[in-house]
Formats: sequence, structure tokens, C-alpha cells
Amino acid sequence: MVLDRINQTNDIKKIEKELYQELAQEIREFLIDKISVTGGHLGSNLGAVELTMAIHLSFHLPEDRIIFDVGHQSYTHKLLTGRRDGFDALRKFGGMSGFPKRKESDCDAFDTGHSSTSISAGLGLVKARDIKGENHHVVSIIGDGALTGGMAYEALNNAARLETNFIILLNDNNMSISENVGGVSRYLQSIRTAEPYTDFKMGLENALNHIPNGGAVVELLKKYKSSFKQLVLNGMWFEDLGITYLGPVDGHNIEEMQKILKKAKRMKRAVLIHVLTKKGKGYAPAERHPARLHGAEPFDKETGLPISKKKKANYTDVFSSVMVRLGRNNKNLVAITAAMPEGTGLNRFQERYPDRFFDVGIAEEHGVTFAAGLAAGGLKPVVAVYSSFLQRAYDQILHDVCIQNLPVVFAIDRAGLVGSDGETHQGLFDLSYLSSIPNMTIMAPKNKWELSDMMKYAVEFQSPIAVRYPRGEAYDGLKEFRKPIEYGRCECLYEEEDILLFAVGSMVKTAKEVREDLKERGYSCSLVNARFVKPMDEEAVYEGARRHKLVVTMEENVQSGGFGEKVLTYVETSDLPAKVLPIAIGDAYIEHGNVDVLKREAGIDKESIVKQIIAQYVSL
Amino acid sequence: MVLDRINQTNDIKKIEKELYQELAQEIREFLIDKISVTGGHLGSNLGAVELTMAIHLSFHLPEDRIIFDVGHQSYTHKLLTGRRDGFDALRKFGGMSGFPKRKESDCDAFDTGHSSTSISAGLGLVKARDIKGENHHVVSIIGDGALTGGMAYEALNNAARLETNFIILLNDNNMSISENVGGVSRYLQSIRTAEPYTDFKMGLENALNHIPNGGAVVELLKKYKSSFKQLVLNGMWFEDLGITYLGPVDGHNIEEMQKILKKAKRMKRAVLIHVLTKKGKGYAPAERHPARLHGAEPFDKETGLPISKKKKANYTDVFSSVMVRLGRNNKNLVAITAAMPEGTGLNRFQERYPDRFFDVGIAEEHGVTFAAGLAAGGLKPVVAVYSSFLQRAYDQILHDVCIQNLPVVFAIDRAGLVGSDGETHQGLFDLSYLSSIPNMTIMAPKNKWELSDMMKYAVEFQSPIAVRYPRGEAYDGLKEFRKPIEYGRCECLYEEEDILLFAVGSMVKTAKEVREDLKERGYSCSLVNARFVKPMDEEAVYEGARRHKLVVTMEENVQSGGFGEKVLTYVETSDLPAKVLPIAIGDAYIEHGNVDVLKREAGIDKESIVKQIIAQYVSL
Repeated sequence: MVLDRINQTNDIKKIEKELYQELAQEIREFLIDKISVTGGHLGSNLGAVELTMAIHLSFHLPEDRIIFDVGHQSYTHKLLTGRRDGFDALRKFGGMSGFPKRKESDCDAFDTGHSSTSISAGLGLVKARDIKGENHHVVSIIGDGALTGGMAYEALNNAARLETNFIILLNDNNMSISENVGGVSRYLQSIRTAEPYTDFKMGLENALNHIPNGGAVVELLKKYKSSFKQLVLNGMWFEDLGITYLGPVDGHNIEEMQKILKKAKRMKRAVLIHVLTKKGKGYAPAERHPARLHGAEPFDKETGLPISKKKKANYTDVFSSVMVRLGRNNKNLVAITAAMPEGTGLNRFQERYPDRFFDVGIAEEHGVTFAAGLAAGGLKPVVAVYSSFLQRAYDQILHDVCIQNLPVVFAIDRAGLVGSDGETHQGLFDLSYLSSIPNMTIMAPKNKWELSDMMKYAVEFQSPIAVRYPRGEAYDGLKEFRKPIEYGRCECLYEEEDILLFAVGSMVKTAKEVREDLKERGYSCSLVNARFVKPMDEEAVYEGARRHKLVVTMEENVQSGGFGEKVLTYVETSDLPAKVLPIAIGDAYIEHGNVDVLKREAGIDKESIVKQIIAQYVSL
Repeated sequence: MVLDRINQTNDIKKIEKELYQELAQEIREFLIDKISVTGGHLGSNLGAVELTMAIHLSFHLPEDRIIFDVGHQSYTHKLLTGRRDGFDALRKFGGMSGFPKRKESDCDAFDTGHSSTSISAGLGLVKARDIKGENHHVVSIIGDGALTGGMAYEALNNAARLETNFIILLNDNNMSISENVGGVSRYLQSIRTAEPYTDFKMGLENALNHIPNGGAVVELLKKYKSSFKQLVLNGMWFEDLGITYLGPVDGHNIEEMQKILKKAKRMKRAVLIHVLTKKGKGYAPAERHPARLHGAEPFDKETGLPISKKKKANYTDVFSSVMVRLGRNNKNLVAITAAMPEGTGLNRFQERYPDRFFDVGIAEEHGVTFAAGLAAGGLKPVVAVYSSFLQRAYDQILHDVCIQNLPVVFAIDRAGLVGSDGETHQGLFDLSYLSSIPNMTIMAPKNKWELSDMMKYAVEFQSPIAVRYPRGEAYDGLKEFRKPIEYGRCECLYEEEDILLFAVGSMVKTAKEVREDLKERGYSCSLVNARFVKPMDEEAVYEGARRHKLVVTMEENVQSGGFGEKVLTYVETSDLPAKVLPIAIGDAYIEHGNVDVLKREAGIDKESIVKQIIAQYVSL
């Protein structure tokens, strides 16, 4: 095996050129072997094998800095920097992250996770290099999908007219997780499908040379454009910004890649290399189903199909169905996703009502203000988005939606611990950042029926409203409790005395288990489903705090600014005698791992909560 | 006066063409007259007089929807829609807003304030129009400065290849508040300074016509570009995105503007009209000093100079000076602004250390991640930014700076009530959104010396850290208290018993006055300057709550997620007997007006606080 000769950074440079293809093949097999067992990002990594090899051959790590935008395509990079053994515990608690991490290797120049950050970070490293008088290269690798994000453009705007070397490698696979959208994507496609510009340039020159006075035309062209080359060059869009464009180049051809990188390294400018790759390259199921095999659960290598058959619907499925149902009768209902039609479950709405579905690209900021515009125009927009990505649009929610009190619905998926993607993707802040915003209403369902009921409620609501629900299997317990949703009112599930469990969304299930455990131990225990985080049901909290000695709030969110602090503040300022125990996530990032393990680590699993409650109760 | 004939929307259409210039002149005089008395945005409004007139002549309001990006250039629009009388109470509490407000007029299609939102909102209105089968025009007016913001690009990307009418009016005055930066700006400048493309196009066609086989060249050109026109057209950058470009056109020539708008209205596409204007047009002091007369205090009409001479330094001045001093010895200190060198006071740092100063454009998202890159490269970046604009970068702080625990300093100006700019600009959320983020440290100075000390502390600190300070005059009281800053420790100013005032930043001054008032009424009162909002000084809170009956927290921030909730949670969960009274801003937006008036309205002025404390204390 050639791969056996790769044990540490720069080992690839000792491999004979003739073996590159073999190595690429072995890397692919290695990745498919490992990811089929652990799960992980597949398609983007298979597409970036040769590209990453070419970079490792052309640069010297760790001195040169390579930044992977989003970062889920960095597996080959991890393999080439001595982390082969890490793949058995990929994305497991305590194991190797699925994203670049500075604390994992000095070859990881910058941590990534969310999209479109790499050019900004790279430009920072470039300026730091120059100010410190250092002499190394900085390469930001960004996908064409990430180029739909505004941050990438803000950074390109700043990289323009740079008088020092900065290499931006545009890994263009013509895909985000799903199909790409928008003008930039179409523009790149026009380059991809065009005949090589050199042919054109030569053709034009030939034509002009065979024409008397043809030279005059060239002169005229030159007069009006900074260079004749620009006029006919692919990538003028970038050149107009002031960024040198090279390409397109076949990203699966290592030799070509090395040549163009060599050229790029010599330029005292910001250079964008347009690299064409194929997502899922070399593995038929991933080439055929790029979205399904983007971030995969363990799968069968032969078929690419998941090994463990899904038994129950997850919350995304429930949301997906209810949106289709709601769209049938409400012709004003429109849906917005930021490049996640499958991930959010809006793909079914898209199929049924294509004219009322909008994929805005990886552009949460625009997506939210666009939704505000739709609402101002009299429609009812539902923005379906992951909790951690909605962080991008905090200002747009606060400034564009809520000041005008526009009836936008936020369907916040992956709210709470998401598991193996780790700290960049945990949805642990939304209750806090949304609670701080005036005019915002926040709900969280206890089970799948309640998600459905809450969505129905939300689309009739006349102000900004959010419904947040977790990743994974939808809870189908507590079916017998299905009181109609009423504004700002919680739902009492079990009424006893002594201890009151006041739980938010996903924690209602845990609270039920906590209650059963406590009852076995002889404690009398009420259980309330909060339903509304904002406004908090003051009357219920008041009555609850009056009738119980201990009120336990439970939420899958950081404590700071969350539900517990609100209840605590209310109880304390209302002169109620009850003690409040807030159960929430502490003030630290939570890494990747199985959600059950993470809950234990964070102290929000059944056992930890029972322990805390008993300790608190006996001290009363 | 022609202006006297303008009393309601569409009255301008009754004015004879010959009087347009006279009307424009009268509008300018009116604006200068009024703004010189009330204060307000001057330069941008003087630049947009004819442009706004042309729009009102070309469209029919309120059916057609006009969206002003940022919105501070909407004064002529307000004048032409029957709000002339509002100008005497412009930006005063209860008076007319300086920004478009849907609740103020049905001719204001969408509320704005922050930059780069208008194309997103406009696109939403366009889609709503089409889905509802309505038939009106939507016009988004955006400045070239706002075009450096990524949201605008995300929206352009989505407007591409639109098959329905949407007019984007690019008001290009070659300025943000200060000079513009980046590739897009230079690109626009290259268009501005080019000879009109029509000359070129005709020249080229002529040249080709006089050449045998010239037609073959044209054919060749056509083969490789979607249209020959595109090849030689200005604005190809937009055309490449899929947006029709018209212009450039003189924005002070109403007739030309009407012509081009007529053309644009007929297109079933997204059309960008490139309009050239001059900021401050027609008023010499504003043309000469565009930054100074951007957002002006009351000024002398003859000279353009402010009427009330500034007597004391404001916090921005203090920050400005300390940055220059710190930059002298610390060669790794770099400074970042998002298009606000004057507003943040970084202009002095820029003059002294131009190589270590970065204006990233109106691009807070990029600015923060760029700073993270600089920090990862070994430098010490200070991001100077207004509180409400930093909302834009919540995710970048959380995801790019704090996960990696990078030592970026945030100097947060205009934190707290900002006054006449109103709800879009109030800096009332930063303590909440920053507190929710792990690894973040937050400080707030009580007076000008402490701001200086905190900045010195911050640039030596090895993790993310924020210093937040308010708009306006720097407090120069309590000079005698200047204990060195110590991590996470508050500063005890007066120690007595019964009541403890625990105040954050700007509220220390108020707390001092509250204490004096309470003492006159016979209450014994301690005063602590919190200094650190995060981490809260638990030891001090513990001791304070042990020794006093009532702990009053005071902050110029919303209550949700703020300092008071943290103290309350700590006191309650530590089984301390003291009562906590949190003084903070309630859960509602606060409009424009004098800061003292707003404080009274919000209940955080001395009198309101004293009342609340006494009421609480007697009930204990």
C-alpha cells in the first residue's frame, strides 16, 4: 500500500509521481471504508482527494497555512498530516473531529464549520504574515456553494488589489449540499461549459491578424479595458473586482493542479484558482446521490444505503409533512431555506409548491430579510433553518423582522445538542438570543404531534414566532396530552406537590423519566410542559412556585439568557418562597460525540438531573 | 414657493417641468434650514433630492414600493409624502423619525436603519406581488457604500435571472460615511471615469464596419459571450450575475433620470440603474466635509460648523487617544473598522499606523472573522464597532473568535441608548448576546479613565474580550477611584449597609446620583462598580448579598440575558437571603429622542430608580 508510507506531514512528497493515482485510489477506499462504519461527510471528501494531495505536494506544512471553508472536506488533509489512526473514532466523543481543529494539529490553520469564513480568515493570516515579516503562503479553499454567502464576497472585496500573495482555491463542484442557486453559480457554470478561453483568444488574435487594420480594433479594445486579456478572459467577474483569475483546471488532475499552484504562488496578488471537481468522485452511490451521501450515517459500502433502517419519523419529517398540509389551504404560505431543502425537510414543499419555495443559497442574513419583505408584502413566510446557522441572522431578526413586528415564522431545526458535528453546530444558543429580542414569541414542542400543532398555530400568528425542535427521532410519547395551543400558556401534564418540573421542548421527555425515577424514590412530583419560552406563562409559574417547594426548569440551551433565568427572575421578583433549580447547558462549548454521551457530560441526562434535584431538595 | 404646492403624496406630479429645478433648490434650502436647527442626516439627503423627485414623478405611491437602504436619505421622500410639518420635531421623542417607518406613512414600504438590507426586502416584496397577482413596481435604492455589505450581494445573487420587474437604483456617490473601500468600489469608479460606453460601442462598430471581414470578428465575439453588448458594456460585473445594468446616469438630472426609469420599468428582469450623485450637493460645507456633515448636530448655516461647542471629550475621543498610545509600543496591535474610521475614533490610529489599520467596508461579519484570522496569525486586533452593528456579527464572534478562544478585542461604542437615531440603532442588546457566548469576557467602564485602563488591560488579555461604552460625553466624575483592573473583579466605591447598588458602566454615574438621593432620604447605601459583566464577580456578589438586604443591579441593556439576571440567578441559587432588584431596559424597542427623555421613558433615570428602590425596600 502506498498509503502505508504516509505517516506524517509532508511524507507525500517522498512518494513517486507515478504512484499518485494509486495513492488517490487508496485514500478513496480508506475514506469509504472508515466513513461507512463511523458515518461522516463523504461526498465532499471524495471530491477533494487529488486537490488536497496537490496542495500538500505544492506547499510546506505547517509553515504554509491551509484553511478549509466549512471544513468537512478536510479528511484527506487529516490523513496526510499523520491522523490516520484518528479515523476509527471519527466524530466520536473524545475522538477526532470531522472538522479542522487547531488544537488537533498545527497543520489546521483555522477552525471552521459554518460556511463562507475561509477568505476572511485567510486574509487575516495574510496581513499578519506581512506585518510580522514572515514568509509563508496562505491558501483558502472555498466551495462554490460557500461563495453564495455574503461574507465570502465581503472578503473578496477586501482581497481586491492586494499587493501580496494570497491564494483562493475555488473548489467548484456545482453543488452546495444540494443544487446551487443564484447568479454566481450560473456564472461559474457558464465558465465551466465554455470552450477554453485560450482557444477563443487565439482565434480572435488570428482573426484580427488576417484583417487589414485589425490591430486598430485591438488598440481600441485596449483603450477601454485595462487589458485586452480581461475582455476575453474567463473569470472577468473576479478580475473586475481586482482578483487575478486562473483556470478552470481539472481538480482531479494532480499534475495540472501542481502547475497552476506553482504559477499562483509567484503572484504578488490575490489569486483565485477555479478548480473543477466532482462531488462523490470515484464512488458511484455518492456521485448519484450527492445530497444523501453528503453527511452520512454508517452505510453499506456496496449500495451506499444506511445500515440501520430508520424506524421512527424524526422532527424534520414531521415538519416536512405539516408544511405540505398547511400549504394546501393557505395560498399565502411560502417557505425559505438557506441551501438546505433536504436537511430542513422543505424539499417536499418545494415539489408541491415550487412557486412558493425559495432556496436563497447559503445566505441566512438575506434569507431572513427576504422573508421580512415577503411578510411586508402580505405573505406568510416560514424560514426553516438549523439553530446554529440562524445565529448568522441575529441582527436581521432583531432589526428587519421584529422592529416591524412582521409575521415571519422561524422553524428552527437541530436546536439542542446535534452530536457528531460538534461545537460549531450545536444549537444551544437560540433560546437566549431570541429571548433578548422584543416582539418575538418562542415555542418548543414536547413531541411530534405538538410540533404539528405548533406549526399550525405559528402560521396563523400575526407576529414573529419561532418553533424550535431538536435533531433526530421525534418523541412519540405523551400522546394523550394534546390540549390546543393557547398563546403564552403552558400545559400541565401531571399535578402533584413538593417538586415541579418545568420543562422546555425536548426536555419534557427527559422530565417524564426524571419524574418516574423520583416517584420511585418517593418524591411527589408535578410536570409542566412549558410550550412557550417567550412569553413565559407567568400565571403558571406563579401558581407552581406557590404550590411547590422546588421548581426545576429544564432546557437544552445555555443557561445564560435562557428559560431558567427568566423563571428564576420572575419567582424571585414576585416574592415567591419556592426555590428554583435551573437545569441547562453550562458556559462552555460542547464538542462532538453521541448525543446521549454529550447529555451526560453536560449534566442534562436523567441520572444527573435526578441527582441534582435530590441534592437540592434535601437541602431545602 | 413651489414647495408650498406639495402637500401630499403625488402632488409633485402637478408641478410644471420648468419648475423642477426651482423645487429642488427649495427642498435643499428647506432641508438645510431644518437640519441646521434639529440636527440630522444632511449630506446624503442633499445628494438624493433630484433622484427622489424623479422617483416620485415616475412611480405612483403608495401602490409602488420604494425602499431606502439605511434610510437616512429619505428626507426628500418624507417631504414629498406630506410630512413637511414633521421636520420641526425631526428625531425628537414622539416626533418624526429620521428613517422610513411603516407606521409613519403608507409610502414607507419597509423600515430600514442598518445597511445593505434593501435588495433583500425589495426582492421579498417583488415575490409577494407576483404570488398575489398584484401589479406594482418595487424599487430598492441602495448606496455604493451599502454595496460593500455581503447581504446586498446575497440578494443580488438571488435577484439574478429574475423574470419579473425589479428596479435596483444604485445611488453612487463614491462614499460610505467616509471613503469607500474594496474591489467593488474601485470597479464602480472605473465605470464612472470611463468615457460613455455608447461612444465606445459605436466606435467599435464603425471600426469593424470599415474592415473587410469585420463581421467575422463580431460573430466570433458573439459566439463566446451571450451578447456582443455585454462584451463592451459598462456594468458587465452585474450582467455576469444576471442583472441588467443601465447607466451611468447623472442623478441630479431629473429628465435623464425619468427617461432611464421609464426604460427600466418596462423590463421583465432585475435592472440595476447606476446613478451618479454628489453627497452634500448644493451646500458647500457638506460637499467639502462629507463625513462631518453626514449625521450632524445643529449647525451654523453659513459655516456648517456645530453651534454648541463640545466642552468635554466623549468616550470615542478617549478610545481614539488610547489606541494611538497603545499602538506606539505594541507593534502587534492592529485596528479594524467597518466603514467608520471617524465614528469609532480610529481615524487617528489610521493616520499614525496606516499599515496596521483596516477599514473593511460595511462588512461586520467579514471584519470579525478577519480579526480572528489576524489573531490566529499572532497579532492583537481591536475591532471598534457600534453596539447595534455588532449584532450583525453574533455568529462570527461565537463561531470564529470564541470557539478558538482567539484574543480579539471588541471596542463597542454607542452601547446603551443612542438617542435620535432610534430603535434601529439603540445599543441595548450587547450584554445579552455576548454573555451567552462561552470564552467571552465583557467589561464596561464607569468613567473616561477607566475606559483607558480597560483598553490597556484588554490588549494584554489572551482571550476574546469586549469593552462597551456609551455614546456621548465621557463621565469625568469618581476620578478618585482608580484601582488597577483585575480579572473578573469589581470595584467597591462606597461601603455602607442596607442597600447595595451594583452598577454596570454608564449606570455607575446614575448609581452615584441615586445613592446621594437615597442618603438624603436617610437610607444607608453601598455602591459597587461591576467592571466585569462576564465573568460576574461572584465573591463580591456573595459578600454584597450577605451584608445587604437589597441588591440593586443597574445596566443600560435589556433585562433578558443581561447582568441583572445573572446576579439574580447567582444570589438565588447560592441560598442568599438578600432581595435582588434588577434595573434594566424592558422587553420593547425604544424609539428616537433625547437620551435623557428616553432614560425616563425606560425607567432607568435617577428619579425612576429611586422610586423603585424605595418601593422595594419598604416591602422587605
